[in-house]
Amino acid sequence: MTNHHKKRSAKAGHPPGTLIHIGERKVDQPIFSVFAYGADHFEEMRAASVEECRRVKAHAEVTWINIDGLHDPTVFEDFGRHFGLHPLVLEDILNTDHRPKTEDYEDYLHVVLKMMNLTKSKRDIDTEQVSLIVGADYVLTFQERPGDLFDPIRDRIRLGKGRIRNHGPDYLAYALIDVVVDNYFAILERLGERIELLEETVINDSGAATVREIHHLKGLLIHMRKAVWPMRELLDGLRKSDSTLIGRETVPFLTDVYDHTIHIIDTIETYRDLLAGMLDIHLSAVSNRMNQVMKVLTVIATVFIPLTFLVGVYGMNFQYMPELHKRWAYPGLWIVMILLAVGMLFFFRRKKWL
Amino acid sequence: MTNHHKKRSAKAGHPPGTLIHIGERKVDQPIFSVFAYGADHFEEMRAASVEECRRVKAHAEVTWINIDGLHDPTVFEDFGRHFGLHPLVLEDILNTDHRPKTEDYEDYLHVVLKMMNLTKSKRDIDTEQVSLIVGADYVLTFQERPGDLFDPIRDRIRLGKGRIRNHGPDYLAYALIDVVVDNYFAILERLGERIELLEETVINDSGAATVREIHHLKGLLIHMRKAVWPMRELLDGLRKSDSTLIGRETVPFLTDVYDHTIHIIDTIETYRDLLAGMLDIHLSAVSNRMNQVMKVLTVIATVFIPLTFLVGVYGMNFQYMPELHKRWAYPGLWIVMILLAVGMLFFFRRKKWL
Amino acid sequence: MTNHHKKRSAKAGHPPGTLIHIGERKVDQPIFSVFAYGADHFEEMRAASVEECRRVKAHAEVTWINIDGLHDPTVFEDFGRHFGLHPLVLEDILNTDHRPKTEDYEDYLHVVLKMMNLTKSKRDIDTEQVSLIVGADYVLTFQERPGDLFDPIRDRIRLGKGRIRNHGPDYLAYALIDVVVDNYFAILERLGERIELLEETVINDSGAATVREIHHLKGLLIHMRKAVWPMRELLDGLRKSDSTLIGRETVPFLTDVYDHTIHIIDTIETYRDLLAGMLDIHLSAVSNRMNQVMKVLTVIATVFIPLTFLVGVYGMNFQYMPELHKRWAYPGLWIVMILLAVGMLFFFRRKKWL
Amino acid sequence: MTNHHKKRSAKAGHPPGTLIHIGERKVDQPIFSVFAYGADHFEEMRAASVEECRRVKAHAEVTWINIDGLHDPTVFEDFGRHFGLHPLVLEDILNTDHRPKTEDYEDYLHVVLKMMNLTKSKRDIDTEQVSLIVGADYVLTFQERPGDLFDPIRDRIRLGKGRIRNHGPDYLAYALIDVVVDNYFAILERLGERIELLEETVINDSGAATVREIHHLKGLLIHMRKAVWPMRELLDGLRKSDSTLIGRETVPFLTDVYDHTIHIIDTIETYRDLLAGMLDIHLSAVSNRMNQVMKVLTVIATVFIPLTFLVGVYGMNFQYMPELHKRWAYPGLWIVMILLAVGMLFFFRRKKWL
Amino acid sequence: MTNHHKKRSAKAGHPPGTLIHIGERKVDQPIFSVFAYGADHFEEMRAASVEECRRVKAHAEVTWINIDGLHDPTVFEDFGRHFGLHPLVLEDILNTDHRPKTEDYEDYLHVVLKMMNLTKSKRDIDTEQVSLIVGADYVLTFQERPGDLFDPIRDRIRLGKGRIRNHGPDYLAYALIDVVVDNYFAILERLGERIELLEETVINDSGAATVREIHHLKGLLIHMRKAVWPMRELLDGLRKSDSTLIGRETVPFLTDVYDHTIHIIDTIETYRDLLAGMLDIHLSAVSNRMNQVMKVLTVIATVFIPLTFLVGVYGMNFQYMPELHKRWAYPGLWIVMILLAVGMLFFFRRKKWL
Repeated sequence: MTNHHKKRSAKAGHPPGTLIHIGERKVDQPIFSVFAYGADHFEEMRAASVEECRRVKAHAEVTWINIDGLHDPTVFEDFGRHFGLHPLVLEDILNTDHRPKTEDYEDYLHVVLKMMNLTKSKRDIDTEQVSLIVGADYVLTFQERPGDLFDPIRDRIRLGKGRIRNHGPDYLAYALIDVVVDNYFAILERLGERIELLEETVINDSGAATVREIHHLKGLLIHMRKAVWPMRELLDGLRKSDSTLIGRETVPFLTDVYDHTIHIIDTIETYRDLLAGMLDIHLSAVSNRMNQVMKVLTVIATVFIPLTFLVGVYGMNFQYMPELHKRWAYPGLWIVMILLAVGMLFFFRRKKWL
Repeated sequence: MTNHHKKRSAKAGHPPGTLIHIGERKVDQPIFSVFAYGADHFEEMRAASVEECRRVKAHAEVTWINIDGLHDPTVFEDFGRHFGLHPLVLEDILNTDHRPKTEDYEDYLHVVLKMMNLTKSKRDIDTEQVSLIVGADYVLTFQERPGDLFDPIRDRIRLGKGRIRNHGPDYLAYALIDVVVDNYFAILERLGERIELLEETVINDSGAATVREIHHLKGLLIHMRKAVWPMRELLDGLRKSDSTLIGRETVPFLTDVYDHTIHIIDTIETYRDLLAGMLDIHLSAVSNRMNQVMKVLTVIATVFIPLTFLVGVYGMNFQYMPELHKRWAYPGLWIVMILLAVGMLFFFRRKKWL
Repeated sequence: MTNHHKKRSAKAGHPPGTLIHIGERKVDQPIFSVFAYGADHFEEMRAASVEECRRVKAHAEVTWINIDGLHDPTVFEDFGRHFGLHPLVLEDILNTDHRPKTEDYEDYLHVVLKMMNLTKSKRDIDTEQVSLIVGADYVLTFQERPGDLFDPIRDRIRLGKGRIRNHGPDYLAYALIDVVVDNYFAILERLGERIELLEETVINDSGAATVREIHHLKGLLIHMRKAVWPMRELLDGLRKSDSTLIGRETVPFLTDVYDHTIHIIDTIETYRDLLAGMLDIHLSAVSNRMNQVMKVLTVIATVFIPLTFLVGVYGMNFQYMPELHKRWAYPGLWIVMILLAVGMLFFFRRKKWL
Repeated sequence: MTNHHKKRSAKAGHPPGTLIHIGERKVDQPIFSVFAYGADHFEEMRAASVEECRRVKAHAEVTWINIDGLHDPTVFEDFGRHFGLHPLVLEDILNTDHRPKTEDYEDYLHVVLKMMNLTKSKRDIDTEQVSLIVGADYVLTFQERPGDLFDPIRDRIRLGKGRIRNHGPDYLAYALIDVVVDNYFAILERLGERIELLEETVINDSGAATVREIHHLKGLLIHMRKAVWPMRELLDGLRKSDSTLIGRETVPFLTDVYDHTIHIIDTIETYRDLLAGMLDIHLSAVSNRMNQVMKVLTVIATVFIPLTFLVGVYGMNFQYMPELHKRWAYPGLWIVMILLAVGMLFFFRRKKWL
Repeated sequence: MTNHHKKRSAKAGHPPGTLIHIGERKVDQPIFSVFAYGADHFEEMRAASVEECRRVKAHAEVTWINIDGLHDPTVFEDFGRHFGLHPLVLEDILNTDHRPKTEDYEDYLHVVLKMMNLTKSKRDIDTEQVSLIVGADYVLTFQERPGDLFDPIRDRIRLGKGRIRNHGPDYLAYALIDVVVDNYFAILERLGERIELLEETVINDSGAATVREIHHLKGLLIHMRKAVWPMRELLDGLRKSDSTLIGRETVPFLTDVYDHTIHIIDTIETYRDLLAGMLDIHLSAVSNRMNQVMKVLTVIATVFIPLTFLVGVYGMNFQYMPELHKRWAYPGLWIVMILLAVGMLFFFRRKKWL
């Protein structure tokens, strides 16, 4: 989580708008997949060049071009020229270390999202930046690597399910954002399960692993909140936007996603509160157990110390110790010692020290 | 409290507006109970179908249809068609994992509430989502299962008590919200009693149960606050709403409920502060008691250690130890040891270590 | 502090506006005391009925009716009719579990205050709700039981001291609020003294009583803040109000009280910070003392342990132990042991462990 | 710091505007020092009466009257009459327990400041209230006792240094406020030095004195912040004021002081953060040292316990103990014991317990 | 970090606008380096006097004068006269203890920045104040000492790289601010690496060094946040400014830097959260290890205490102790003691105390 800025310093000093890819994962070749559709037609293809994308776009109501892989700046210069994108937008797309935001460039909207997935081990969160360009009759999406989160939407377009084919690019953009946000819920569910599990172990098992798990979960929640907070602002901005690119009938849908982000933030805060409480319970349980142990051990020691003193007394070599020569002395001492021990134990119990 | 999102992931990928019921408790058959009334007439019935509900509605000033049970999506599609509800509203009604909110769809208002009840054991809180649709001459309420919280209002309508029969659907909606909010007070009373009880036990009994009870109460308060905060916004929105569906004379009543929610939030915060203070007192009491025990035991050990050393000295087998052959040596040593022990105890007492 | 809602649940289910008294303390008979005055006339009386109050009101510039005792709802229905009060206002007056607020009903203002007094033991705070109705030529005040906080104002009216007789009901209302707010300062003074006292004891005396006193004071401050915060909003609302009932020349006076409430909140926050600091000092002092004790005792034990070992060595019964037969052995051992003990003490001191 | 309200209760019950001096320090006789000046003339005098002050004022561009000593209310009634001051303003001037604020009375501005000085011991902060009345051609300043903070400004007026003689009363007021605010920096410097000093001692010396010093500094910072926060609001109010008494060219200067107050608040917050961190380091250092000590002592005890057991074994008086009669037994036991001790120490070291 | 105000007190009492340099580092002679350029021409020189700077400025589209070294006030008086700067601006430039801000003086904008660099040891942050004056056709930058952070921009101007030569002084100002902000990322990267390193050591190594490192990093982050927060406000102010000096096409670039500052603040907060969590883990690890040690040692002591008592018993010198004369007694005791020890260890293990 701390290696956000690893390669950003490589960019220091370059003039703004210089296209340098900041990020780790690459694909061999950027892949352009194009969906061109309207209420009654639909076309799907893999384009070889930006030029080809453009040709398809000419005779469709909505064109969705998805680009996987950001490592080749020249491709993006082409895109910039063809779609009239501001150099700073191109720079932002390539720099995958951005916080979610939306910017209105009149001819198009630029939306930066954080797509989150659980890693294979289901223990960590994998974050990927997705950039959306929403124009009057097209949507561009830029991803660092191919992923299957958008597949249900592709299916909906292919099969004409729901209202997606009857709406414009704003609705498509909404659908894409909605999928990203819905996935947060899936992650939160998984985290919620781990928190529930923790709730049970925290009382019985006080290993250091518990503390580390609590802090690991806390870290993930901080990480998510960092992504969702700006998401919330972004969606509030979109639904209240006076851009002509967002149709009036799309607003309730955006409001719906907006409500989801608020819900997510609420849940994150609740989880954080629960984890904080769990840490308290854990610490209190650990110190409780420790105290229990120390108390019992100390009591054992305390009971034997006077007894040891007594046997020491009769181990002395004084010439004149009358007790030593009495027949009843040895068994008598045993009785005294047993009474003493029992008395002390009884006293400790009554004082609730045991 | 952590299983909010259990089934939500089942919905991921479906187009928005798909009617899937998210929630746990079901009734066998959705029940429609219809109240149609005006200042001077009143009719009550159990409807078999949406169509039947509609027929009653035609000739009444206010029609209140209450639906218990949300598991059958086809019923809701009917409702949607008959009352012209937006697909997202229907989706929200079925998805019982929402935060309270209000939405103005011009022809009707959509209000989502969280109804809370103590469980049978009186130890936990049971939360149920209630959706209200407030139209020009009707109110729809959707509940997950039949409950008796609305019964007093039913009685008021039946008997014509209060001003409910002389007012429109906005007043009915207010009355329903008021009942839900008033029930929060009842829950807070019960929690308040448990906190008072804790205040007494926390000083004397330092068991781990106390910590768990404190954190349990804290969790319930977090849970309630999460429901009441958006409730407050919701009511503020309603009373300041410029919707024609909310009459001018209903506004003071809504302001009244709004004040109640603020009061509830205040009380929740006060309780949280009290619990935080109690946790501090508890921890301080535990460590105090522990210290007391350890101190006494350590003092006992410390007093005997020099004595044991002394008796050890006269247990040595040196050939030339003049004291061993003195008559007064043994009783003398006893006197020395008693003086030493008393002196140490006196010293510890003066230092306030005992 | 936790029994706020004790009887509130008794009201659940009743239609709003039902007049039920929620509160504890009652007087046998509600007492109406009426002050009717103007710049040059003044009349004081005890009225037997609402009707009588009204007669006096007719020919005075300002009429102040104070009602002590809220248990008889029928009286309040009379009042409501005569003065044209909204049912919710009457309900609020009787329900003494409200947070301070102000409401503008055009013909009159409704102000709810929390009057606070130290209990007889000077250890706790006694809270009483006071409701004000400020009309064009009258002020109504409702108290739960007779009290003497308003007596100085009564004297001022009687003697025509200050500017009270030359001003309208708004000034009278200001004067009443001012007295209530000024009394908060008196309570804070008393709490301030107790905090000062604590500051001295906290360092020397580490009893559990200190922690409880700190938390008791914290509780009182939380309680006060809960009352003063809405008071501040209330006064801000009044001074910025565009109601014709508040004259322009009364505004600076309201601003003055408003400043006082801010000052009170500031002081409460400062006290809370001081108490938090004191708790830290207390905990640090307790653990410091404990450490001191444990350290000294442990050092004593540690010094004697090797010595006890040594005397044990020469208590062994081996046949061939050459030292046992040397004349100098016994005194030599004493010298060795003393040197060892002194050396260890010296070492501990140098390490600053003593 | 807690005796703010000591005498305030003396005022409870009096009508507002009653002139009672609340505060501690008095001078024998109020002193009026008058500066009357313009771009090309300057006059300085000590006035005997308000009347005399007024005479000087008549023929000067700017008149600055400074009053030291607030104990004689009759003087202030004179002032009130001559300068047309509102009774509440006079009351505020005499009541030296106010938070900084500014009020616009059209003909004049009323500004309340908190002047702070280090006490002689340089350990505490001494707070004095200064009230400013800024009129069209005069400035009145009220202090509780004579002080020399304003002397540099007096010199500037006398010598005509800077632009003060060429500007109106608003600039003079600015200059006075600036001096007060600049003095906060001086105090913060001193506190900063003490914090730096603490940073060094906190790691080595863990006395209770350190905790007390940290909390003392924290208290002072809380005290300062309480004065500076309203100061910031006050200056923001002044610079954005639409009063005709504040000239346009004075605004950048007020903005400059405003920036200073923000800077001071920033520094206070930073210091508080540093102190909080230091407290953590201190606590961690204390517990670290304690642990170190306990660990070493416990290890010593632990090493000797088995040895003492062994020598105890050969101190037993059994008739048939073959070892006792072997020549090599005694030196052999020594070797065993030394090996055991070394082995345990080695084991503890390897486990990093030493 | 605490010596901010060291020399500021030297200024107290001087009239505002007095030019006194507050700061530590000086260069021998202030250095003026002048860049005069336009789309198609470029000139670079080292000026000897302000007059010379001015001459170059006359025939260039944009003139950038960078001044290193602030110790000679007379130079700044010259500058003030030539460029018509307000005395407070000059004072602010010389006083290097300012928080970042922007001020609009109509003819020019005054921007104060904090430039941050890692010290040579890479452990601390070195802060330098940079003041910018942005006029219609010139930019002045004032630095305390020569540095190379602006060198990439100089190169871009020299080589005509990027769009800098085609834009006005507003773009140059943006580029300078951008470089300063980008450098914060570089510092955060370095801090991020140290935090990552800490994350590994914190679990294994519990030295006091870890706590100090955590607090050191916390201090640096507090320090950075203190600089970046006002930077954020400053940039928000600039991009929303209605000054004619900021061209419309520069706004997206300023918005970009603004986003960067938000990102930086986000990262700082995340790092602070991580450090807080690490401190918790550290404390929990330390106390865990300590408990482990104490537990093992206490168990050893506890096991031997009864054994030592037993051997003490048979070291007693009673005349009548039948066991002493049995052949099997000595080996029998050994067996009993071994069984006892093993039994206790087994019991402790089952109780999970070991």
